[in-house]
Amino acid sequence: MMPDSLPPYAPSQRSRVRRHPERAHYDPETVFAILDAALMCHVGYVIAGLPYVTPTLFWREGERLYWHGSSASRMLRTQAKGIPVCLTVSHVDGLILARSAFRHSLNYRAVMAFGTAAIVDDPAEKEAGFNAFIERVYPGRTAIMRRISPQELKATSLIGMTIDEVSAKIRDDGPLDLEADYAADCWAGTVPITQITGVPIPDRRAPPHVAPAPEIGHLAQGTRLDEALLAAARRENRYG
Amino acid sequence: MMPDSLPPYAPSQRSRVRRHPERAHYDPETVFAILDAALMCHVGYVIAGLPYVTPTLFWREGERLYWHGSSASRMLRTQAKGIPVCLTVSHVDGLILARSAFRHSLNYRAVMAFGTAAIVDDPAEKEAGFNAFIERVYPGRTAIMRRISPQELKATSLIGMTIDEVSAKIRDDGPLDLEADYAADCWAGTVPITQITGVPIPDRRAPPHVAPAPEIGHLAQGTRLDEALLAAARRENRYG
Repeated sequence: MMPDSLPPYAPSQRSRVRRHPERAHYDPETVFAILDAALMCHVGYVIAGLPYVTPTLFWREGERLYWHGSSASRMLRTQAKGIPVCLTVSHVDGLILARSAFRHSLNYRAVMAFGTAAIVDDPAEKEAGFNAFIERVYPGRTAIMRRISPQELKATSLIGMTIDEVSAKIRDDGPLDLEADYAADCWAGTVPITQITGVPIPDRRAPPHVAPAPEIGHLAQGTRLDEALLAAARRENRYG
Repeated sequence: MMPDSLPPYAPSQRSRVRRHPERAHYDPETVFAILDAALMCHVGYVIAGLPYVTPTLFWREGERLYWHGSSASRMLRTQAKGIPVCLTVSHVDGLILARSAFRHSLNYRAVMAFGTAAIVDDPAEKEAGFNAFIERVYPGRTAIMRRISPQELKATSLIGMTIDEVSAKIRDDGPLDLEADYAADCWAGTVPITQITGVPIPDRRAPPHVAPAPEIGHLAQGTRLDEALLAAARRENRYG
């Protein structure tokens, strides 16, 4: 549950939604729910004036976002104070078929989060961060595995960013046709799109000794990934 | 089908995959298949030195990528020669549960495409572009709808970019555990993730006069969106 004391983020020059401002949201509850329902984000950064967008796994802890070392980490290593980043998350929720070509659209949930990304160097914070990510997706799983080794911790960077400015944008509606088009002779409506889990495939090289365990029970075949992730995040009460 | 005459893209300073180079692909067939299987991309650009990543629908025509006007278009309007862009596409294909926390991973397909994005101003090219996008997702659908009006064409920008440098990265494997960990007492394997279509929902405000038509038959309930999009793109033989 989200405490109701957290104020909305202020729309800024960077984060204010300009196209379809009626679809914008700046309250933490909406923003965090979109972030927590996602596994993958797209991190944008600038090297030598040019844009790069890296898809990567990420997770949230309060107002901080974390991800593993990416190609940006080469640059981050040389920038102790961090670099400006735009971390974007999107969910495709439905295809919108309107009665004119131009009004075809998409139902979606998206967040653009701006901040300064920096390497997390402290080994204890790194270990806690990686474990928190495993727990986010597979609650209870770290307890049944060996600890992350010091060598493993060294091999990968943990990058963290506090959300400075952020906006969410949601379209959740049917077709919005021009009045004159409603009489048109074609089907119009929504084709829902969801990301779902399939049948778990045991490791082929060395089949596990044990059956799928409770920590992946929430990902049973046919589960919506966004809903499972959001529910797991809420169980952890991870705001704060 | 892809002509076999098209040479691989050359890995460049920007596009060369550094982490897990064994997962990199530079041949157009692999790159285009990942692009064509996606509806959504994340476009990265730089304004006043800061990164922005906008999720948007896109489509491919040969070596050119197109998308609708985004917040970048304000800037593009003032930059007749275009701006540098990184357009990234990713598909989440599976959760990888390893026998140690650190080796957990993801199966995915991703493309990072670099180029210079510019506004397409010619109305005929714009109209053709928007129609091509509808046809890509719903083959045959533009023929049953009225034409895009001049006012509609004016209202939205079409942005185009030729792929200058590009790389694909694919992970398609089970868990890759350390030898010492294979004896561990936890389940290990892959939880497949797919994006699928649900039951079409007719427009609630004004239910269509007609039943869902053949142009959305390839999106019947339970269809994998990536496979349907890729098949539609290949039917159009869109390379060239």
